[in-house]
Amino acid sequence: MGKKELDMKGSVVLLGVGQVGRSLLHLISGVNARTKADSRLNVIGIADSHAALLDDDALSQEILSEAAGIKEKGGTLEQMEGTLPLSEITSALSPGTILVDVTASSDTGPLLETALSRGCGVVLANKRPLASEWEKAEVFFSHPHVRYEATVGAGLPVISTLRYLISCNDSFSSIKGVLSGTLGYMCSEMERGSSYSQALLSARDLGYTEPDPREDLMGTDVARKALILARSAGWPLEPDKVDVEPMFPDFLSQVTVDEFLREINTLDEEYAMRTSEAQTAGKSLRYVAKIDRTGAAVGLSQEEKESALGSLSGAENAVIFRTRFYNDVPLTVCGPGAGPLVTAAGVLGDILDLNVHMRKDR
Amino acid sequence: MGKKELDMKGSVVLLGVGQVGRSLLHLISGVNARTKADSRLNVIGIADSHAALLDDDALSQEILSEAAGIKEKGGTLEQMEGTLPLSEITSALSPGTILVDVTASSDTGPLLETALSRGCGVVLANKRPLASEWEKAEVFFSHPHVRYEATVGAGLPVISTLRYLISCNDSFSSIKGVLSGTLGYMCSEMERGSSYSQALLSARDLGYTEPDPREDLMGTDVARKALILARSAGWPLEPDKVDVEPMFPDFLSQVTVDEFLREINTLDEEYAMRTSEAQTAGKSLRYVAKIDRTGAAVGLSQEEKESALGSLSGAENAVIFRTRFYNDVPLTVCGPGAGPLVTAAGVLGDILDLNVHMRKDR
Repeated sequence: MGKKELDMKGSVVLLGVGQVGRSLLHLISGVNARTKADSRLNVIGIADSHAALLDDDALSQEILSEAAGIKEKGGTLEQMEGTLPLSEITSALSPGTILVDVTASSDTGPLLETALSRGCGVVLANKRPLASEWEKAEVFFSHPHVRYEATVGAGLPVISTLRYLISCNDSFSSIKGVLSGTLGYMCSEMERGSSYSQALLSARDLGYTEPDPREDLMGTDVARKALILARSAGWPLEPDKVDVEPMFPDFLSQVTVDEFLREINTLDEEYAMRTSEAQTAGKSLRYVAKIDRTGAAVGLSQEEKESALGSLSGAENAVIFRTRFYNDVPLTVCGPGAGPLVTAAGVLGDILDLNVHMRKDR
Repeated sequence: MGKKELDMKGSVVLLGVGQVGRSLLHLISGVNARTKADSRLNVIGIADSHAALLDDDALSQEILSEAAGIKEKGGTLEQMEGTLPLSEITSALSPGTILVDVTASSDTGPLLETALSRGCGVVLANKRPLASEWEKAEVFFSHPHVRYEATVGAGLPVISTLRYLISCNDSFSSIKGVLSGTLGYMCSEMERGSSYSQALLSARDLGYTEPDPREDLMGTDVARKALILARSAGWPLEPDKVDVEPMFPDFLSQVTVDEFLREINTLDEEYAMRTSEAQTAGKSLRYVAKIDRTGAAVGLSQEEKESALGSLSGAENAVIFRTRFYNDVPLTVCGPGAGPLVTAAGVLGDILDLNVHMRKDR
């Protein structure tokens, strides 16, 4: 190994120019700057939900920076010169190109399938195409040119560890994990004495939550990750086989974000009680996903204080694999499971890996 | 993914029929039994330090079982009919064959190099060829057809996580780990109140130590792992750049095993003091490898009780990567880092992975 000149030669089309997309563009331009012109990874297209920018050879660094700047200020690609309707993106899908989906959209599935049928590779940070009904999602789990490391645990090698165990001809008995940095942070803060509302507001201030924090609190994002882990382990669960406990009551689901935030202190007492119940039992309260071949459950759980999940702090993620070979003592991967930079790093790893594999397959 | 018919078609020559070698033969026969005849992994040769058994097509299950039985009883392959001198092994090294070294020999290097030059793949659980002077070892780190997952952390995906980080274009700042199940177990037992001599004898009873336990206690095996991690991270350290603290004093290095075991209770006081010093400081005493680009140190270290290393129990291993992307919060892999079955599983994973890659390269 050591320091070698990278040969990353390949073309990428990027769907999504949010935080992860911009971090990815930044990482790509960083490695390209240290690479000979003919072995660079060329970004030949980018798109947001409004428009696309395409160039057969490569979008220039200037154009990519301008696009990133506009998106950072909350604008859309439509504001730029030379943009095309979103539907034009298919013209960039020639064999060998890698289509990268870092959106949170549930509508990219058909485009991703078109890409695969044209001999493109697909890299996903977007969980939704992988977490829909099995009939639609199956293609992404069975196709050799799909990668999705960043969908679970951001840049942590969770999916690659799972694939490694499969490559050792191991078989899974269960998978368990803390898969949300936001909910992990909240549990950890409540353990340190914060109320539910304080913990939530501080997670929000740190930028850990979605604009509407209920999107994190309702647990569906963790449920999607649980589904992706299950399916990767060879268990084709349907979404309705994942039992989800939300971290707020139903009657607060229909109000506005502001109203929700005004009401959250009414939840303090309940969550303080659940936290202290765990502490009285000598345990830690964690938001945990538990997965096996029969289904998955996502919700609060009392974990042993010294266990891999109970000893997590802050926004850390951890995934615990129990398998035929790792039965008495399981295999654990842990570390920061969120953040645009590590997520983008995982996406870049997938792109480079897929690029090498697709070149060999040709 | 899911359950697919495995196509593992390929040929393997196995050096070493000790515990790991026999577990590997067992795993291979298990998967072969579930595979169609023309996609099996054929063991076409096995060898111990005395003799070789070869068959152009495949050694039969009966012959492999007989060989395993003899080795298990402490015999050698020479006792079998049809064995050949060890030097004949080169005749089995045709392009595409995978040579697997699960010995603990420092003499296999030239044979491994011959294999590579003939277009074979090489899979190592033997650390020595990777831990010799850089000039000799370099070929094994730079050649695309070499795998060595099982040399560090047995079957834990330590090397593959390291490779994953490199594939994300990450760069390492430091690597730290508990890399010896034996010494991990001893530290853990001393923490629970056992004396040094009790902890050592109980590790010995559990089969965790080498016949001469000083081979574990002197730390050179951990030093080899540290060297392998450093070199894999791109730091071509020489063996003399690894500073090693042995877990017994120099004056006990020249006596017989029995004399050594009679003398060990003279060490109880010193190690009880070091353990209680750590506890007084609110920490855990661990046998730790610390690696960066300038060198490596292997020895006892006080670790925070709630840290990944401080909270290990029993014979568990853990490796902590600090990198450009995993800086504030590092990436940790932990689990059982020893045992013939998980080690053999890691070796099998390497064989299957290498098999796929070499087929694509042809």
